[in-house]
Amino acid sequence: MPEIPNAAADRIIRNATGLRVGADAAELLAKELDEIGKEIAEGAGKLARHAGRKTVKKSDIELAMD
Amino acid sequence: MPEIPNAAADRIIRNATGLRVGADAAELLAKELDEIGKEIAEGAGKLARHAGRKTVKKSDIELAMD
Repeated sequence: MPEIPNAAADRIIRNATGLRVGADAAELLAKELDEIGKEIAEGAGKLARHAGRKTVKKSDIELAMD
Repeated sequence: MPEIPNAAADRIIRNATGLRVGADAAELLAKELDEIGKEIAEGAGKLARHAGRKTVKKSDIELAMD
């Protein structure tokens, strides 16, 4: 189930382009950003566990994005 | 102003890792996904304009993600 609201993706596209946005365009962008977020999060989770923590910290996200 | 709610980024990290999530970790992921979304949207907007349209379509997002 996607976590990022389609409405958020719609606003990102409208703000970035000044154009109108098809509903399926916003839906696809939301899905894609969810997937990218999941990949970053999985990497960050491995880093947190590797450091012996049970909490994902900002530094884990930073390193996972590198 | 970020469009993706921190709460959505928090859920993405929790679901992907099963770990607890620092508030600043969720905030950073939300900000990063906003930025990635903006870049994809800008590319998609150029493609829509190039095609003579005033609406960003799903196919613009697809091509911009390639």
